[in-house]
Amino acid sequence: MDIDAWLSDTRALIEHWIEEDMPQTAIDQGSVEDAMRYSVLAGGKRLRPQLVLASAVYLGQPMENFRDAALAVEYLHTYSLIHDDLPAMDNDDWRRGHLTAHKVYGEAMAILAGDALLTEAFAKLAHPDWMDRFNPSRVLLAVRRVALAAGRQGLIEGQVKDLAAEGRQLELEQLEEIHRKKTGALIVACVQLPSVMVGDAQAEARLTEFGKHFGLAFQIVDDILNEIGDAQVMGKATGTDRALGKATYPAILGMEASRALAEHHRALAKAALETGARSGILRSLIDFAVDRQW
Amino acid sequence: MDIDAWLSDTRALIEHWIEEDMPQTAIDQGSVEDAMRYSVLAGGKRLRPQLVLASAVYLGQPMENFRDAALAVEYLHTYSLIHDDLPAMDNDDWRRGHLTAHKVYGEAMAILAGDALLTEAFAKLAHPDWMDRFNPSRVLLAVRRVALAAGRQGLIEGQVKDLAAEGRQLELEQLEEIHRKKTGALIVACVQLPSVMVGDAQAEARLTEFGKHFGLAFQIVDDILNEIGDAQVMGKATGTDRALGKATYPAILGMEASRALAEHHRALAKAALETGARSGILRSLIDFAVDRQW
Repeated sequence: MDIDAWLSDTRALIEHWIEEDMPQTAIDQGSVEDAMRYSVLAGGKRLRPQLVLASAVYLGQPMENFRDAALAVEYLHTYSLIHDDLPAMDNDDWRRGHLTAHKVYGEAMAILAGDALLTEAFAKLAHPDWMDRFNPSRVLLAVRRVALAAGRQGLIEGQVKDLAAEGRQLELEQLEEIHRKKTGALIVACVQLPSVMVGDAQAEARLTEFGKHFGLAFQIVDDILNEIGDAQVMGKATGTDRALGKATYPAILGMEASRALAEHHRALAKAALETGARSGILRSLIDFAVDRQW
Repeated sequence: MDIDAWLSDTRALIEHWIEEDMPQTAIDQGSVEDAMRYSVLAGGKRLRPQLVLASAVYLGQPMENFRDAALAVEYLHTYSLIHDDLPAMDNDDWRRGHLTAHKVYGEAMAILAGDALLTEAFAKLAHPDWMDRFNPSRVLLAVRRVALAAGRQGLIEGQVKDLAAEGRQLELEQLEEIHRKKTGALIVACVQLPSVMVGDAQAEARLTEFGKHFGLAFQIVDDILNEIGDAQVMGKATGTDRALGKATYPAILGMEASRALAEHHRALAKAALETGARSGILRSLIDFAVDRQW
């Protein structure tokens, strides 16, 4: 399994779907859709929709069947970045080498573009085409799962706790709680979605376990790369967490123990999956998440 | 049909449901849920959930079956108010005699509380309990309907156009387009929801027509009351639209023609409904919308 080729192929596929869904020709300049499109297309690994697709492969399902689910989680992720970058939150002018939405479109439009992407995610998840493919009650459960992962006890609570933690010392447990909510909940939902939609409870349990460890490993490595990564390779500044006095895994545990913890989660993520060819991509994805340089 | 009693009873019922759903005892002070609860309970007519319930009565369905739909539309409406009031948008410190969310909790928390209410609305709409009561494919359609009404070509587009219209002269058509999106789309969705969920296409067509005229009549009267209403009775300042040079129906058409237009929509709203006892509440609601002093 050549994971680099798979990542680049699916990234192209996902960006093709985005182009289909928000074609430039159909969008008025200066409209909220213009700001939505700008933000969704301003770079990004497309990791969350890739997790949806990798999970479809694990179930032996065609990726195409999960197009709208993949778009939904990418829109949801983009909304969270737009709002996180706002002056009232992290006040970031740049992300992935592009100006952030509020720098280009103003603050009001950035707030509204985030709102619209969040709302659009649910319009996509409830797409009526799916009723031919899946049991509608399973799709409804998927909508609910995503709403809970993104909501007041998921992603948003994580962001609140992250803002509250600024400049404070955290225990390892508190840091993990922030990450389990801020990034982990949506990652778990991405990995779960196909199994929820096809109604495979056994696979869902395994994938949930995989997703939890994937999310934590991913975040630990994010923290490590912020500390020691090559800014050139990563396309963003490094050393920023330390400069801001942010709680990170290396700051709390040191570099060696942080790496060991990432390895621990890699092993548990792999152990959660059934062996066999279909698990190849998910296995390679956790390797990518831990071994990446960006 | 004593509409005042019905309005006050259903308002109490809806507020009881909110209390049940977000009990103070289960909420940490300073959490995002605290800010959500504050905003949802900071006054309001509860008109949107009342439209859901009135529409249930029209269909001969128990109101209780639409509890989660009623909560969802009220949460969605509250989110839109919190974000509209932000400094980057209308910059309002007060609403309904209460400080706005960003004045109490700060701007970051207000943005997040709005996001969380929007997300919670979809968690409610996709509530699994409903699968016993309704065909899940109909519920999924209801989720989609609300997402489209609230989204980039609905409520949010209306807000974008409203912000862009500030200080500009508008034609009647442009003003109506703003209102059809900014307030009308969600009102139509509220009135439609029960018929979508039970799958009564004929009633849905009638209710859609009713909702469109209800929304416009409501907005015209809002504009009239802002111009000539009693600030004491309304619980908010009047004359603010004129002071801000905002496009309103009275500003474009004059007072007499504005009243006539509201009457026109009242008549068309009533004409859309079947006669009979079940339509009594919806008929009284459009009378309330047009005749109200607040």
